Amino acid sequence: MGSDSDLPTMAAAIAICEEFGVAHEVAIVSAHRTPERMVEYAQNAHRRGLKVIIAGAGGAAHLPGMVASLTPLPVIGVPVSSRQLQGVDSLYSIVQMPRGIPVATVAIGNAQNAGLLAVQILASHQPKLLDRVQAYRQTLKQSVLEKQQRLEQ
Amino acid sequence: MGSDSDLPTMAAAIAICEEFGVAHEVAIVSAHRTPERMVEYAQNAHRRGLKVIIAGAGGAAHLPGMVASLTPLPVIGVPVSSRQLQGVDSLYSIVQMPRGIPVATVAIGNAQNAGLLAVQILASHQPKLLDRVQAYRQTLKQSVLEKQQRLEQ
Amino acid sequence: MGSDSDLPTMAAAIAICEEFGVAHEVAIVSAHRTPERMVEYAQNAHRRGLKVIIAGAGGAAHLPGMVASLTPLPVIGVPVSSRQLQGVDSLYSIVQMPRGIPVATVAIGNAQNAGLLAVQILASHQPKLLDRVQAYRQTLKQSVLEKQQRLEQ
Amino acid sequence: MGSDSDLPTMAAAIAICEEFGVAHEVAIVSAHRTPERMVEYAQNAHRRGLKVIIAGAGGAAHLPGMVASLTPLPVIGVPVSSRQLQGVDSLYSIVQMPRGIPVATVAIGNAQNAGLLAVQILASHQPKLLDRVQAYRQTLKQSVLEKQQRLEQ
Amino acid sequence: MGSDSDLPTMAAAIAICEEFGVAHEVAIVSAHRTPERMVEYAQNAHRRGLKVIIAGAGGAAHLPGMVASLTPLPVIGVPVSSRQLQGVDSLYSIVQMPRGIPVATVAIGNAQNAGLLAVQILASHQPKLLDRVQAYRQTLKQSVLEKQQRLEQ
Amino acid sequence: MGSDSDLPTMAAAIAICEEFGVAHEVAIVSAHRTPERMVEYAQNAHRRGLKVIIAGAGGAAHLPGMVASLTPLPVIGVPVSSRQLQGVDSLYSIVQMPRGIPVATVAIGNAQNAGLLAVQILASHQPKLLDRVQAYRQTLKQSVLEKQQRLEQ
Amino acid sequence: MGSDSDLPTMAAAIAICEEFGVAHEVAIVSAHRTPERMVEYAQNAHRRGLKVIIAGAGGAAHLPGMVASLTPLPVIGVPVSSRQLQGVDSLYSIVQMPRGIPVATVAIGNAQNAGLLAVQILASHQPKLLDRVQAYRQTLKQSVLEKQQRLEQ
Amino acid sequence: MGSDSDLPTMAAAIAICEEFGVAHEVAIVSAHRTPERMVEYAQNAHRRGLKVIIAGAGGAAHLPGMVASLTPLPVIGVPVSSRQLQGVDSLYSIVQMPRGIPVATVAIGNAQNAGLLAVQILASHQPKLLDRVQAYRQTLKQSVLEKQQRLEQ
Repeated sequence: MGSDSDLPTMAAAIAICEEFGVAHEVAIVSAHRTPERMVEYAQNAHRRGLKVIIAGAGGAAHLPGMVASLTPLPVIGVPVSSRQLQGVDSLYSIVQMPRGIPVATVAIGNAQNAGLLAVQILASHQPKLLDRVQAYRQTLKQSVLEKQQRLEQ
Repeated sequence: MGSDSDLPTMAAAIAICEEFGVAHEVAIVSAHRTPERMVEYAQNAHRRGLKVIIAGAGGAAHLPGMVASLTPLPVIGVPVSSRQLQGVDSLYSIVQMPRGIPVATVAIGNAQNAGLLAVQILASHQPKLLDRVQAYRQTLKQSVLEKQQRLEQ
Repeated sequence: MGSDSDLPTMAAAIAICEEFGVAHEVAIVSAHRTPERMVEYAQNAHRRGLKVIIAGAGGAAHLPGMVASLTPLPVIGVPVSSRQLQGVDSLYSIVQMPRGIPVATVAIGNAQNAGLLAVQILASHQPKLLDRVQAYRQTLKQSVLEKQQRLEQ
Repeated sequence: MGSDSDLPTMAAAIAICEEFGVAHEVAIVSAHRTPERMVEYAQNAHRRGLKVIIAGAGGAAHLPGMVASLTPLPVIGVPVSSRQLQGVDSLYSIVQMPRGIPVATVAIGNAQNAGLLAVQILASHQPKLLDRVQAYRQTLKQSVLEKQQRLEQ
Repeated sequence: MGSDSDLPTMAAAIAICEEFGVAHEVAIVSAHRTPERMVEYAQNAHRRGLKVIIAGAGGAAHLPGMVASLTPLPVIGVPVSSRQLQGVDSLYSIVQMPRGIPVATVAIGNAQNAGLLAVQILASHQPKLLDRVQAYRQTLKQSVLEKQQRLEQ
Repeated sequence: MGSDSDLPTMAAAIAICEEFGVAHEVAIVSAHRTPERMVEYAQNAHRRGLKVIIAGAGGAAHLPGMVASLTPLPVIGVPVSSRQLQGVDSLYSIVQMPRGIPVATVAIGNAQNAGLLAVQILASHQPKLLDRVQAYRQTLKQSVLEKQQRLEQ
Repeated sequence: MGSDSDLPTMAAAIAICEEFGVAHEVAIVSAHRTPERMVEYAQNAHRRGLKVIIAGAGGAAHLPGMVASLTPLPVIGVPVSSRQLQGVDSLYSIVQMPRGIPVATVAIGNAQNAGLLAVQILASHQPKLLDRVQAYRQTLKQSVLEKQQRLEQ
Repeated sequence: MGSDSDLPTMAAAIAICEEFGVAHEVAIVSAHRTPERMVEYAQNAHRRGLKVIIAGAGGAAHLPGMVASLTPLPVIGVPVSSRQLQGVDSLYSIVQMPRGIPVATVAIGNAQNAGLLAVQILASHQPKLLDRVQAYRQTLKQSVLEKQQRLEQ
C-alpha cells in the first residue's frame, strides 16, 4: 500500500490471507514518495517467490499500475476511497490501464475481495485451497439462509 | 461473452491466448437470455479443468459477477462499451461487487488486457509462461524505443 | 432483497403493501451468495401465484435483473444507496437492462414507490384497488393543502 | 411521447404491442408545449379503459412523471437519449420521482423493454399472455444457442 | 415550492424580497401531488399581477419547468439539493428544458440568488430598484475589503 | 459571446429577438482574451439602456458570471457545448455562481431559450410583448396537434 | 483567494512558503464581488515583482482563470471543495481554460501542492532552492520508510 | 509523452516552444512500457539543464505524476482525451496528486496551454520573454477585435 493511511482499508485483505492460511507480507511502498523503492520492490517480487501482488492507493492512484508495469506477476488493485471524489478518481486511475499492462481491479474500498481474488488465483493451481474457497462460499450462503430464518420468526 | 455483438471487443482476448499458446474455449452465455445455461456453465467450469474465466458484458453487465458467484475460479470482467453511457454503466456493474465475490476488472473495452491477465495468472505457477510474459514486455519496450528513434530522424 | 442490510430501505415497500391490504411475502435472496436459491425462487414465483416481484439491491446490483431474466412476471427494482457511489452504481446496474428483459426501476432508495407501483400494477385489473390508489393520491393532495394553510397562519 | 422526434425511439414499444397482439394507441402529448392536453389525457386514461401508459421523453423529461401524477395507472418511462448529456438528464428526470408517485423506468433509449414491461404487467392477470411472454423468452434463448453453434463451426 | 421540506432552502429567496422591499407571496404547489392546483396557479399568475415566479424543487424536479410551460412570465428555478445525487438530478431536471420553454436556473441550493435575480428582473424597469441593486453590490465589495483589513492586522 | 466559434450556437438567440421585434446588439467579448473590454462593456451596459444581457461561453465559461458581477442587469448564461466534456464544464462554470451574483442559466447549447427568456423578462413589463409570448406558445401547441393529426392519418 | 472562507484550505500554501523561506503576500480578491480590484491586482502583479500567483476558489471558480487572463505570470489554481458538487464544479471551472490562457491546476483542496509548485517554479532558477526541494522530497521518503519500520515491529 | 499516438495532441506544445524561441527536446517515455527509462529520464532532467517538463498521457495517465515524483523541476501534465471516458480518467489521474508531489495540470487535450505555461514559468525570470508573453496576449486581443469588426460589417 502507498501510505499507512490506507491500512484501515487494506487490513481486510490481510485478514483474508490469514483466514485462508496463505503466506503473505505487508509493505508500505509509495509510488510518489519512494519511487525508487517501488521499482526495486516490483522488479524483484517474482524472484523472491511472490505469486500475486495486491496494491491499494487513492486519488491519483498510480501504485497498482506502476507495480504492474514492473512485474510479470498478476497485480490486484484496490481503489481506496478519496475524500473529494469518493474513489472515482482512484478507480479510474487503477482500472483504465493501457493495452499491455493489466491491473485486476476490485470495488472501491473492497480490500476483502482483493484478498479473496488473490486466494482464488493461488487456488486455481492448488486443489485443497480451491476446496477452501468452496467452503467459504458455503458459509456465505449459510449466513443468508440464517437471516431468512430470523426474518420469518 | 453475453452476445455475439461483444465479439469484436472480446476477440483481442482470444488473440492473446493464441499468441501465448494458452488453451482456451469461447462461449456465448447470456446472463439474461440463457440464465440456466450460465449457471450450469459456471458451476462446472473448474471440474472441466478451466483455470480462469474471462467474461465480457455491456450495460447492466451482470455476466461476470454472476459467473463469479457460481465458480471458485478467478473471473476476469471486461466492461464492454455501451452506446449511451460509454461503458460507465458496464464498469460499475462489473467492478462494484459486494464483499465475498470478487471480479478482476480491466479497463473499458480492453479485452487484450483481460487475456494478458489470464496469462499472468497461469504464469504465476508456470516458469516458462512467466518468461514469455517477460519477453512480451520486452517487445513493448522495444516498440517505444523504436518510436523514439523514428521521432529523432 | 439481497441482504438484511437492505431491510431499512425495503421496509417502506412492505409498509405500502400492508397499508393497501395487498398479500405479500418477504425473502432474502442474494444473487451472489445464494445464486441457486435465486434461480429457484424466480423460476417458480409465477407458479406459486405471485403477480409482481420487488427486488432491491446495491452496488453491482444484479438481483433485480437476474430475477427478471428468470420470471415472466413484472419485476420492480429498487437501487439501494451505496456507500461510495451513492447509488449511481446500483441505479445503472438495475435500469440499464438489455433488450428483452426489462426491470421497472424506481428512484434510488425509494422502496415506498416500488410498493406503490406494485399496487398500481395489481390495481389496473382490480377496480376497488384502483379506487384506493385514487384515495391515497387524495391524501397526498390534502397534506400539501394543509401545509399551505399552516404557512399562511 | 412528447414529440414526433421521439418516434424513432418509441417505435420499438409499438412493435412489441403489435407482436403480442395487445391493443394500444399512440399519442403526441407534450408536457411543456401542450400541458392542458396532457392533464386531460392523463386524467381520463383509466376511464377510457387504458391499463398501462408508456411515456417517452428526453432532456428535462417531465412527461412520464407528470402523467404518473395524474393517473392511478402504472406509467412506464423511457428516457430518450439527449444530444448533450446522452440521456443521463432524461434518466434522472424520469427515475428520481418523489415518494408517492412512481414511474417504472427502463434503460435509456430502450422502448422495446417498455413495451415488454407493459405486456408483462397485462400478462400477470392473463394466463395466455403469460404463456406468450414465456415463449418470447424461449426465442431469446434459442437465438443465443444458434449464435453459439455458428461460432463453433 | 413543491413541499414544506424545501422551505429551509427557499427562505433565502423570501429574505431577499423582504430586504429589497419587493412584494411577494409564498405558495406550496406540488407538481406531482397537486398537479391541478399547479396548472391553475401558473395559468393565472400573470393575470393576478405577478411579474416573476421563483420555483424550487428537488430530485425529478418538474415544478419549475411545468410552471414555465403554463405562464408567459419568466420562471426562476432553484435546484434543491437531493439526498442521493446531491442536486445533480434536480439541476438537470430544471435546466435542460426543451426549445420553447426556458427556466432561468440558479446554482444548486442557492435560493438567495433566485431572489436577487427576481429583483434584478424587476429592477431593469425600475431605476430606483436598480440603484438598490448597485448599493447591495457595494456592500458585497465592502465586506471583502473588511476581510482583507482583518487579515492584515 | 466569447468567440465567433460560439456564433452557430448563439444565432438562435438573435433569431428570437428578431422574431419578437426586440432591439438588440451582438458583441464578441472574451473574458480571457479581452478582459478589460469585458469590464468596460459590462459596467456601462445599463447606462447605455440595455435591459438584459445574454452571454454564451464554453469550457471554463467565465464570461456570463464575470459580466453578471459587473452589471446590475439580469444576465442570461448559455453553456456552449464543449468538445471533451460535452458542456458539463460549461454548465457548472455558469450555473454554480456564489451567493450575491446570479446568472440565469438555460440548457446546454439552447440559445433559443436564452432569447425567449430575455423576451419574457422584457414582456413582464410590456403587455403587448406578453401577448406575443402567449401567441408564440399557441404556435408551439398547434405544431404538436398537427403532428398528432399527421400520425393518425 | 476569493473569500476568507477559503482560508482554511489555502493556509497550507502559506505554510509551505514559510517552510521554504519564500517571500509572499496574502490577499482576498473576489472575482465576483470585487472585480475591479481583481483586475487591478492582476494587471500590476508582475510590475510589483511577484513571480507566481496562487489563486483558490470554489463553485463557479472564476478567480484563477480571470487573474491568469490579466497577468503574464504563471497562475496556480486550487479548486476549493464545494458543498454540493464536492469540488468537481471548481475543478472544471479552473482547469478547462481555453487556448491561450493556461492555469496550472492542482488537486481539489490541495493548497499544499500549490505552494510546492510555486516553490518548484522559483527553484528552477535558484539552485539553492532546488536543493531544498530535493531535501523536502528526502523527508517524504524517510517518513514512508519509518512507517514501514513501525509496521514491522 | 507516453506514446506516439499522443503526438497529434502534444504537437501544439512543441509549436508554442518554437514560436517563443524556447529550446526544447521531445521524448517518448512510457510510464508503463518503459518504466526504467522513465525513472532515468526524470531523475537526470534537472542535471541536464532542463527547467520545466511537459508530460502528456491518457487513460490511467501515470506519466506526469511519476515524472513529478522523480524530479524537483515543475512538471506540467496534459490529460490526453481517451476514447471511452473522454479524458475524465486522464484528468483525474493527473490532477488528483497526493500532498507533496504537485502536477501543474492544464485542460483536457490542451497542449498549447501546456507550452504557454512552460514559457510563462521561464518568463518569470527572463524579462524579455515576459515581454513576448505580453505581446502574444496582445495578438489574442487583436484577433477578438477583428472578429467583432467582421461581425459588424
